[in-house]
Amino acid sequence: MNENKKLVETITARDVDFAQWYTDLCLKAELMDYSDAKGFIIYRPYGYAIWENIQKYLDNRFKETGHENVYMPMVITESLFQKEKDHVDGFAPETAFMTTSSGDEGERLIIRPTSEVLFCQHYAKIVSSYRDLPKKYNQWCSVVRWEKTTRPFLRGKEFLWQEGHTIHQTELEARTETLDMLSIYNQLGKDLLAIPFVTGRKTEKEKFAGAVETYAIEALMHDGKALQSGTSHYFGSGFAEAFDIKYQDKDNLVKHVFQTSWGVSTRLIGAVIMVHGDDEGLVLPPFVAPTQIVIIPIQSQKPEVMAASTELYNSLKQAGFRVKLDDSNRTPGWKFAEYEMKGVPVRIEIGPRDLANGVVTITTRHNRAKALVSKIDVLTSMPSILQNMHDDLYQKALNHVQSNTFTATTYDAFKDQIEKGGYIKMSISGEAAELIIKADVQATARVILDEPLVTELCPVTGEKATQTILFARAY
Amino acid sequence: MNENKKLVETITARDVDFAQWYTDLCLKAELMDYSDAKGFIIYRPYGYAIWENIQKYLDNRFKETGHENVYMPMVITESLFQKEKDHVDGFAPETAFMTTSSGDEGERLIIRPTSEVLFCQHYAKIVSSYRDLPKKYNQWCSVVRWEKTTRPFLRGKEFLWQEGHTIHQTELEARTETLDMLSIYNQLGKDLLAIPFVTGRKTEKEKFAGAVETYAIEALMHDGKALQSGTSHYFGSGFAEAFDIKYQDKDNLVKHVFQTSWGVSTRLIGAVIMVHGDDEGLVLPPFVAPTQIVIIPIQSQKPEVMAASTELYNSLKQAGFRVKLDDSNRTPGWKFAEYEMKGVPVRIEIGPRDLANGVVTITTRHNRAKALVSKIDVLTSMPSILQNMHDDLYQKALNHVQSNTFTATTYDAFKDQIEKGGYIKMSISGEAAELIIKADVQATARVILDEPLVTELCPVTGEKATQTILFARAY
Repeated sequence: MNENKKLVETITARDVDFAQWYTDLCLKAELMDYSDAKGFIIYRPYGYAIWENIQKYLDNRFKETGHENVYMPMVITESLFQKEKDHVDGFAPETAFMTTSSGDEGERLIIRPTSEVLFCQHYAKIVSSYRDLPKKYNQWCSVVRWEKTTRPFLRGKEFLWQEGHTIHQTELEARTETLDMLSIYNQLGKDLLAIPFVTGRKTEKEKFAGAVETYAIEALMHDGKALQSGTSHYFGSGFAEAFDIKYQDKDNLVKHVFQTSWGVSTRLIGAVIMVHGDDEGLVLPPFVAPTQIVIIPIQSQKPEVMAASTELYNSLKQAGFRVKLDDSNRTPGWKFAEYEMKGVPVRIEIGPRDLANGVVTITTRHNRAKALVSKIDVLTSMPSILQNMHDDLYQKALNHVQSNTFTATTYDAFKDQIEKGGYIKMSISGEAAELIIKADVQATARVILDEPLVTELCPVTGEKATQTILFARAY
Repeated sequence: MNENKKLVETITARDVDFAQWYTDLCLKAELMDYSDAKGFIIYRPYGYAIWENIQKYLDNRFKETGHENVYMPMVITESLFQKEKDHVDGFAPETAFMTTSSGDEGERLIIRPTSEVLFCQHYAKIVSSYRDLPKKYNQWCSVVRWEKTTRPFLRGKEFLWQEGHTIHQTELEARTETLDMLSIYNQLGKDLLAIPFVTGRKTEKEKFAGAVETYAIEALMHDGKALQSGTSHYFGSGFAEAFDIKYQDKDNLVKHVFQTSWGVSTRLIGAVIMVHGDDEGLVLPPFVAPTQIVIIPIQSQKPEVMAASTELYNSLKQAGFRVKLDDSNRTPGWKFAEYEMKGVPVRIEIGPRDLANGVVTITTRHNRAKALVSKIDVLTSMPSILQNMHDDLYQKALNHVQSNTFTATTYDAFKDQIEKGGYIKMSISGEAAELIIKADVQATARVILDEPLVTELCPVTGEKATQTILFARAY
């Protein structure tokens, strides 16, 4: 294999330089490329197809649960943007504007960093009665935030996402929506991405600009850093009051609505790469992989090899698997290394000797296990091969989380551990402790844990501890 | 019905003021709304769902024919944009820019009006061998063009579209791609939109900035004006030379690629409205309609009515129809007018008297035909009800095109007819004639017809006629 490996461009080993490994992989697995405009990336077919699979899963779940898609303008007038104070303060530093040479754009137009205010204004206009509620809208689009440092999929000046915005009659209904959507995101991890998210509420310091409460799904990367992978916000009536979103209730009283918003982005692609990838390249969980199975004919000049390959390809495709037959004139060794690097879950080799025995060789990417499988059994065994692989990957990621979650009873132990990576539970007094921790070791509160206090006093401030927090360094 | 009609906001009649009818309908059928930013619209759920159905149809066809989706940045550096001269000249007047308060964006960033140059630059980077060809990419996104006058769906500062960009080894392959995609667009009209497009090549004057040839699908609206509804361009090697997109061929020679691009936009929603709509509101062809069937219980307080309604709803939904059960506390009359205005293809009324006889009342929107149908036959008869409705609508639109297509042998006859609307065939000498016609009566060449000359001399210039053109006033 070594020689073939060199045919495919080599990737930095994870333990040598994880950041470089990540960037190498993004480029060499052809997930993305850079553009001339700094901080703006090109989503190449292989990367975009991962996003499409995530979209398909979520869009179905959103629609099943009564949400409707809309599309709001990509620009927001400056006066509209400034209506909710916390929100402006949170986003103003990173806004970009749309201008023209003629300068006839009137009021300054902000390119959406997020669309709360557009939804609020629209809802205020179209809602008047309890009969109009709830409104549960979602939008798939790109947003722009003028970030100073950018990394493929993790932080960019433009990224793709979905943003859901809903309004409800009651606080209970809105709070339920907030948690239901968090639960759908969590399920996306379980069903599709094979990522065990930690879910929970954000601290006051870390919550979204304008939210009453923010919940998040957090994932632990291979290098022990956390990645916030999605958020779901409960807004109460704050935006509704600022934007005058009111309705006449059954009791004839005019009331403000209760509101939520929630979103995930192409950041999830980064999570998949950094949770599952290894030194040979990507390892894609089978249900999110653009290509689930690659068939590689060995000695493809032999007619029986190509015939068997094509037949198997057709039957797998027919059955709904995402399958590719590579009959190009590269060597089998080159192809093995290439699809390994691209993380294709299942490789099927079809060669003349195996064929004579009625078998093919199946290799699963995540554990490199090889098995001879009866040609006639390939189709029927494929669902369980993929499911087992998915389960293995999920379990491996869960083990990683469990063996890298620590509890700190002293601040020194916390600081020691944070250098080694992983999640650390610690009970703190409040925001003052968070600020000290961030300044000292650049770790942040990922979520508030619904667990008993670890220590009575906060190891950082010495004051009474009030909540147990899951800390980590994060992307 | 008159009283109920007033409950639903009334719409201007088409013959009174077609433009007002169109705008009324866009707003009142809740397809879109205006935003604070002039020229930027909100795609509301009912309008966006039409676009989603178009997307689903086309995305499947694109993928079946070997295309892959990507996502390019929404900005283009000014120097990149200026590489192909014709292209710049065509788009420069209507470009918008992205800027920041800090001014740290470096080179000026143009917000994409179309993405040819981004695809070209990327292709130049990733293609080196004949093995890399063809590349057939597509992108779903929004683009920005700083239009002075805007109309919902027809012309906006931002609109949603898909843009396909492909590169090929040979001219033949690229020309075939150009026509294949035109054919898919034409088929979209036949299968989904019930619109008989006229397809053909654009004149030199009307072709896309930078194209060798532009082909279009044109639709005739109810008011006799044409709407260019999609285009497919053959670029030759012009962009490839400007952007240096080269590959080493099997014969070891380094060659430039041949290129295409093609796109349709949310303008198609405007076409559907203006081809099929009537004075009561929208008439949506069943295969593109967000809701195909609405069930309206009559005396819904009676348990047997709601039970039968729910049962029918479930069986239709189960069978894959897009069905809605309206059990709100509005009157049946209000609901009839509302769904008529929204153009829902099939209405099923379920009332106690009909139920006692084992029947329900089915009304088809396009012809207002009512029929009593056995409750047990509803499910099995629905496919043919929808198909017949689709065929009726297509045929009606085709009749409209045929009875509004004229041939002019004199310029006076041409000018008389153009005031009345419709397509007019005339044989002209060339661009000089097009310019005169446009100046005189604001009509433009829609497509070049593959038909014999109507007259030997051009009725406009008196010079020798060279081609027969289909003219119309257009949106």
